[in-house]
Amino acid sequence: MSVPTGVSNASTTTPPEIEQTLAMLSGHRSVLGYMVLSRGGTVSIIKHSGVVFEGEQGRKYAGLIERIVESVQTGLEEISGEQNEGDEIRFLRIRTKRHELMISPAERYLLAVLHDPSS
Amino acid sequence: MSVPTGVSNASTTTPPEIEQTLAMLSGHRSVLGYMVLSRGGTVSIIKHSGVVFEGEQGRKYAGLIERIVESVQTGLEEISGEQNEGDEIRFLRIRTKRHELMISPAERYLLAVLHDPSS
Repeated sequence: MSVPTGVSNASTTTPPEIEQTLAMLSGHRSVLGYMVLSRGGTVSIIKHSGVVFEGEQGRKYAGLIERIVESVQTGLEEISGEQNEGDEIRFLRIRTKRHELMISPAERYLLAVLHDPSS
Repeated sequence: MSVPTGVSNASTTTPPEIEQTLAMLSGHRSVLGYMVLSRGGTVSIIKHSGVVFEGEQGRKYAGLIERIVESVQTGLEEISGEQNEGDEIRFLRIRTKRHELMISPAERYLLAVLHDPSS
């Protein structure tokens, strides 16, 4: 029995509002690449753009992004007290010597953008 | 034999340029607290301010901050390629539903600031 096309596609395509954001990002000169990752279970790259996120390097970035988000989320749950009950990550910004990595987690996917602040 | 006062203090006091920053931070209404942590080996809280960073909760935050920085730094080394050889963290900004946690790592210490964007 085959899975209906509409259903099997639903989990791997990005929502239209995201498509618009991605198109905008690709147009930015300082954006080196973006990545849309699935959340929960094994991390998989749904979509990506930019040489920096291709092949083995892309898979390493995906693993790193997933690990950072998980460690932050687990940490937030550990320190959950009166002041931050049920707190969750909305946005992560990692400025390094060379780049800036921005991660925006949603319920079912993660959007990551690598940006060169010097360009 | 006792350790000379000047020497024993040198590793636990914060540099003067940091003191100035900390005084400024404490004056900000939206700042819930700050923490200065030692880097390398066992993480220890050199200095802190704010109820949110006191006692057990403070120690949990310290552990979380240390873990995040380490996992990001390790990840950066793993993905080290032509484009980002020797890359290192300069600044981390974690926006959650309730708060914003900013982490600024230096060679020997980490400065973390917890901030309430709604106030």
